[in-house]
Amino acid sequence: MLSHTSLVRGLSSVVKKPVIAIAGSTGAVGQELLDLIKERNFPFANLKLLASKRSAGKTQHFMGKDYTVEELTVDSFKDVDIAFFSAGGGQSKKFAPAAAKDGAVVIDNSSAYRMDPDVPLVVPEVNPDAAFNRPKGIIANPNCSTIIMNMVVFPLHQKVGVERVVVSTYQAASGAGAAAMGELEQQAKDWVAGKSPVTQDIFGRQYVFNLFSHNSNIDLDTGYNEEELKMVHETKKIFNDPNIRITATCIRVPVLRAHCESINVTLKKGMTHDEVRELLSSAPGVTVQDDRVNNKMPEPLDASFKDNCLVGRIRQDLSQSDNKGIEMFVAGDQIRKGAALNAIQIAELLLERGL
Amino acid sequence: MLSHTSLVRGLSSVVKKPVIAIAGSTGAVGQELLDLIKERNFPFANLKLLASKRSAGKTQHFMGKDYTVEELTVDSFKDVDIAFFSAGGGQSKKFAPAAAKDGAVVIDNSSAYRMDPDVPLVVPEVNPDAAFNRPKGIIANPNCSTIIMNMVVFPLHQKVGVERVVVSTYQAASGAGAAAMGELEQQAKDWVAGKSPVTQDIFGRQYVFNLFSHNSNIDLDTGYNEEELKMVHETKKIFNDPNIRITATCIRVPVLRAHCESINVTLKKGMTHDEVRELLSSAPGVTVQDDRVNNKMPEPLDASFKDNCLVGRIRQDLSQSDNKGIEMFVAGDQIRKGAALNAIQIAELLLERGL
Repeated sequence: MLSHTSLVRGLSSVVKKPVIAIAGSTGAVGQELLDLIKERNFPFANLKLLASKRSAGKTQHFMGKDYTVEELTVDSFKDVDIAFFSAGGGQSKKFAPAAAKDGAVVIDNSSAYRMDPDVPLVVPEVNPDAAFNRPKGIIANPNCSTIIMNMVVFPLHQKVGVERVVVSTYQAASGAGAAAMGELEQQAKDWVAGKSPVTQDIFGRQYVFNLFSHNSNIDLDTGYNEEELKMVHETKKIFNDPNIRITATCIRVPVLRAHCESINVTLKKGMTHDEVRELLSSAPGVTVQDDRVNNKMPEPLDASFKDNCLVGRIRQDLSQSDNKGIEMFVAGDQIRKGAALNAIQIAELLLERGL
Repeated sequence: MLSHTSLVRGLSSVVKKPVIAIAGSTGAVGQELLDLIKERNFPFANLKLLASKRSAGKTQHFMGKDYTVEELTVDSFKDVDIAFFSAGGGQSKKFAPAAAKDGAVVIDNSSAYRMDPDVPLVVPEVNPDAAFNRPKGIIANPNCSTIIMNMVVFPLHQKVGVERVVVSTYQAASGAGAAAMGELEQQAKDWVAGKSPVTQDIFGRQYVFNLFSHNSNIDLDTGYNEEELKMVHETKKIFNDPNIRITATCIRVPVLRAHCESINVTLKKGMTHDEVRELLSSAPGVTVQDDRVNNKMPEPLDASFKDNCLVGRIRQDLSQSDNKGIEMFVAGDQIRKGAALNAIQIAELLLERGL
């Protein structure tokens, strides 16, 4: 086990393969973490799969080996170097400090620590250095909609400065978990079978052929829902710029696993749409899909199971002058770049530079 | 038949029931026009159902009577007082002038005449008077997305002035016609049956569990598609304000018949969200559905088959100061208020005030 001290110092002397734990290995993001570890040949000396008492004892088959899922407890992390948490905010709050105390670097997918000033909030393409200043031994993975937006807004912010963002989302079922995706599929089956009302155990409404305002709680003072406030506040933290003005409207659409966002940006200094397209063409993790002639623009199905976020509809905002307004439309896999991939990339960063 | 001269003068002496023609009676909007004529007890002395040669000879049953669909020709309007056109822009261009020449007031659902300076573009809740200044005898019905946006933006514009609108749409299949709705339903059936690829004769892509940038042509210079440009230019004409700044992103989502829009407004003079909510509560054709506690906001299924547009998510834009930013989310039935209902309301206006 690597000592906590050496982890915090970011020593690059760590050449041995890390011991990895995944808390919440049986969930949608946990499964995707496993897929990505395999796909990217992420090195590990040992793998511990952790879950709630309910799932403990189950067997998960991974890369030719059977793993018995262990119950997540404060004692789960004695020999762990990197602990991915994707078991919900409650579990993160309860067990992440124990993991960090035992010397693991925690990469937490929940929202529990994101706004903690002592916890860095990291998108590797945006603020990689922040991962190496983690007083609590915890790194937070941002909200999925935040990450996907940041992938295309940050390059502009870095280049000329972004004054204001108005974003409207088109979010998939996956953000609400595997069961939510299942319910959307079940509703399609029910609808085709003529069953009315369709199954609605999770969202309490028909979702297929419908859409609705994001299911997170609405802050009664501002009227914004939690998802929207995450996009606003997390972006300010990730960009390390409290002055960037952001407003968001988050909507769930009947799509399975990739989010889209209609993003209107006001720049501090004008850029032509060609300059924006060129900039985003070379932005890490971004693929420009902006075929005006054939009207082939980013779609959730095209972005699904892809690492890169797709961006298109890049155009000068007709309502702004001096090329200061830019419109764009982005699609990104919510489970990959929106969650598991970003977490793995943080871990890769740790290995590259030394934990 | 009423003389064209008397129509243009707007004489209120017309008390007899009008003879109505519907060009395109077998289409989605044509059917809805018939439903609304019945539902609203719209008076008529006689009804002529017109369609292309292909549909001519068919029988349409309406209010206990069988009507034989006649072929739409230049001679179809000799005795007609009000001619609804919903047979596409080409047919409107070809036959609307003939109808007007024969003394009918044309209410045209296509985009053919909308930007013609001699043709008024009318949303009865916004600019009813414009209907009575029609040098060509033609009144244009605006684009569906334009109408739905105007229903909630105009009250603000009238009250304090709207400086700028940033809108992103969530548009249903219905805007592309009855066959498009059928294809979306068929795709759900194909998907459930495990058929891959799903039927894609109309949109050329999977639409169920997916979304895509609006299927209208993209203007290669600006990058905006035709639907977006309609929202921009038609609103300026309807509001009679060339200076209102508007940008739009139009997206098709897998929903059957109601459009939603995420609307960000910059006001000339600040209003609190409570003031906006109160104003919209008394706006004609608008129902406020803005339950923050239960997170019950406008949904396309709730707006479907309804006359009123639903508006919610009314809140102060966090990215703006002095209460000058307002966010809202609207849902409106694309076939009703977005097309047929607006046309019928124009006709009702003509009857009320005299053709």
